[in-house]
Amino acid sequence: VSVGQVGMDGSDGMDAVDFQILEQSRSGTQGYDIVEGLTTEVGERLAGTEAEARARDWTVAKFKEIGLENVRVEPFTIPGWERGVETAAIISPFPQEMLLTALGGSVATPAGGITSDIVYFPTFEDLEAAPMGGLDGKIVFISGRMEKAPDGAGYGPANRKRQSGATEAGKRGATAVVIRSVGTDSHRFPHTGQMRYADDVAPIPIAALSAPDADQLERILERGETVRMALNIQPRATGDMPSGNVIGEIVGSERPEEIVLIGAHLDSWDLGTGAIDDGAGVGITAGAAQILIEQGLRPKRTIRVVAFGAEEVGLLGGFAYRDRHADDLDKHVLATESDFGAEPPYEVLLGVTEGDAVIREVAAALNLPIGTRGTNGGPDIGPMARRGVPTMRFQQDGTDYFDLHHTPDDTLDKIDPDDIAENVAAFALMAWRAANAETDFRADTPDTDK
Amino acid sequence: VSVGQVGMDGSDGMDAVDFQILEQSRSGTQGYDIVEGLTTEVGERLAGTEAEARARDWTVAKFKEIGLENVRVEPFTIPGWERGVETAAIISPFPQEMLLTALGGSVATPAGGITSDIVYFPTFEDLEAAPMGGLDGKIVFISGRMEKAPDGAGYGPANRKRQSGATEAGKRGATAVVIRSVGTDSHRFPHTGQMRYADDVAPIPIAALSAPDADQLERILERGETVRMALNIQPRATGDMPSGNVIGEIVGSERPEEIVLIGAHLDSWDLGTGAIDDGAGVGITAGAAQILIEQGLRPKRTIRVVAFGAEEVGLLGGFAYRDRHADDLDKHVLATESDFGAEPPYEVLLGVTEGDAVIREVAAALNLPIGTRGTNGGPDIGPMARRGVPTMRFQQDGTDYFDLHHTPDDTLDKIDPDDIAENVAAFALMAWRAANAETDFRADTPDTDK
Ligand SMILES: [Zn+2]
Ligand SMILES: [Zn+2]
Ligand SMILES: [Zn+2]
Ligand SMILES: [Zn+2]
Repeated sequence: VSVGQVGMDGSDGMDAVDFQILEQSRSGTQGYDIVEGLTTEVGERLAGTEAEARARDWTVAKFKEIGLENVRVEPFTIPGWERGVETAAIISPFPQEMLLTALGGSVATPAGGITSDIVYFPTFEDLEAAPMGGLDGKIVFISGRMEKAPDGAGYGPANRKRQSGATEAGKRGATAVVIRSVGTDSHRFPHTGQMRYADDVAPIPIAALSAPDADQLERILERGETVRMALNIQPRATGDMPSGNVIGEIVGSERPEEIVLIGAHLDSWDLGTGAIDDGAGVGITAGAAQILIEQGLRPKRTIRVVAFGAEEVGLLGGFAYRDRHADDLDKHVLATESDFGAEPPYEVLLGVTEGDAVIREVAAALNLPIGTRGTNGGPDIGPMARRGVPTMRFQQDGTDYFDLHHTPDDTLDKIDPDDIAENVAAFALMAWRAANAETDFRADTPDTDK
Repeated sequence: VSVGQVGMDGSDGMDAVDFQILEQSRSGTQGYDIVEGLTTEVGERLAGTEAEARARDWTVAKFKEIGLENVRVEPFTIPGWERGVETAAIISPFPQEMLLTALGGSVATPAGGITSDIVYFPTFEDLEAAPMGGLDGKIVFISGRMEKAPDGAGYGPANRKRQSGATEAGKRGATAVVIRSVGTDSHRFPHTGQMRYADDVAPIPIAALSAPDADQLERILERGETVRMALNIQPRATGDMPSGNVIGEIVGSERPEEIVLIGAHLDSWDLGTGAIDDGAGVGITAGAAQILIEQGLRPKRTIRVVAFGAEEVGLLGGFAYRDRHADDLDKHVLATESDFGAEPPYEVLLGVTEGDAVIREVAAALNLPIGTRGTNGGPDIGPMARRGVPTMRFQQDGTDYFDLHHTPDDTLDKIDPDDIAENVAAFALMAWRAANAETDFRADTPDTDK
């Protein structure tokens, strides 16, 4: 394939096969059908549970059914965690129930729950600025709103309270924490997500209120009276539990040992059915491979589809993959993950240091600009990217992603079949072209195209 | 007040006081503040519970605070009902939890729940058409989608399964019923609402699935295997419980015995805080009275604000009012209720038989057309309307009302302060003009204006 002048009309450097891949992807339902099957026939699939195990079985069967080769599970073990009862109520001055959910990894309250006064911090930064002590026995409420953005730029800042709220409150003597959910909706769904404890601070329970409940609590606090809350969450650590990465391949015809990796994560949070996070990604990547197989296309390099396990609870599948493949990461020529819903991509991000002409050509064929930021390829790709695996990413429009993210409302009806098909087209063309290129994407590898 | 040619520019027949009422309403926050207070300081207020009692206390205090006179509660007794545990899961072929909620008035499943095969009816009409028998011991699933419409026209047809699903399934031997929620959203909120049992059919439990859960169940059924569900709902009848209508007045200066009634219902379902259903109506009607009081306006007739109790469970406050006031219903010259959210009105409906010039003039001042349908004035007005009380109604835009109706998501954030202020303007001007008119609105009463 010669790399000519690349325009935005999507035609330069494209051949009949490329056009066929795009057309078949866009007119097909491969990606949608896979996420429909996974979310319907398995549903939620929390990392380490028997539901995630059923999801692996389902994915192995599906990968075989669509014609992937070398289908296998690479197992690993994770620390299990499961949700239990979770209730909260304002006791005074205005008694009423509140809707919340435990954050992933949280410890439980004592059996039967706790009742205490609330101390309010409008933002996480306000808590960080608070003096040590003074919160003894209190329930800390951390609010702070997340901004909407196509690239999800508001997530990182908003997520600080989720990640570190229990540590910062615990240091200061608090007995528990409730946060405004990290999300951009105004529906009565709390958003879960993983939290972390610091080694040197005693762990305290932490849970997230839905946005309307956080609004309500703020209004009650504005009245100026002491607000007492009863909080009962009973999640539990379940010890070592099995997880695994499901792998399938289209084995390359000329350089089968060279890997183009397209992946997504198979596990979901337990509240919804994980349609946008990340059943969509499983559908997009496996659907892209299915398109190539159905067209009878065998690339020169191997295209490897990975459905990572246990992403939600700390990218554990991504780390397990990196460690298991430590000796052949240098044979991974390009890796990318789909994990941002099912809206169409609006730009392409480059995490390669050389030989990006193929990626630019694919972007042009999709009428996508190249973004100015870099990428680590996606959450499960990050660990291998830091070991030098070249990456790229289709940046999907995530403006509304955090309306649904990690809530019970992450269900199939939120996915538009045409939108997910456009993602399949992008992944199919990129995988095909990268797996047929002579190009390596590492700077220190001779670029045979030049 | 002379009734001239009525145009749509809102100026004909309007005097300075009328304009002042509209301006003060539109620039004020009286209605919003009341629903903010009620939903924040009381929250949910299910009929017959101590929460509804707190709502009455709150409303009495609020009515006095805004300057209403003769503030009082007219108590009555209702059959109490409270929600309990409610869980459901698909047991096979694809095990997963389902989100649902018991319908108001439903009996419980046996303790610990039941497990049975599902029999699917795409619509309630399909169930009605089914032969007697054949459903012995089954859980009947009735789907059927509700159409969106500004006037909520889809509600009646969709609601048949809610009202009568248990009876029709019970007649045919079923052990329980789950329905697709009566609603127009695609969020993971089940919609509750009152159901009824027939006297001659043994009562069976009935609950509503959220729309995404109903979609999911349909997809599972499409796979063609027998679907088994575990269902456990534990609502209970709580016996005779107190409710009441809260009343406040602006006493008329010339004909105080003649009543212009503006009302809303005070109770809500227990899942949300009843902001759009019907805290908004309480805010709109009490806020309208507050506007007049703040402007120092005393009408010739009495304007009576009624916050009806126990509407959700069978219009019990409306019937109690009608019975208690049986002897002076003939002194009720006009009655109307706000119970359709907080979106602005788009037309005015007439339930009067004579003397509608005042209403037409107010409609014109608000730039609202007169609708072609009649009205019974609203759910709690219906019983007195059937005894001859003239009515009118501001038809609010309810296109999105059934997205939220009877769900946990019915919360204050869904109310736009400007929109509710427009409703306050409409009610304030209508109440003022109707209470100052010489007109009666009954056909058989001499119309002194003509
Ligand atoms: Zn994800
Ligand atoms: Zn996630
Ligand atoms: Zn209502
Ligand atoms: Zn209602």
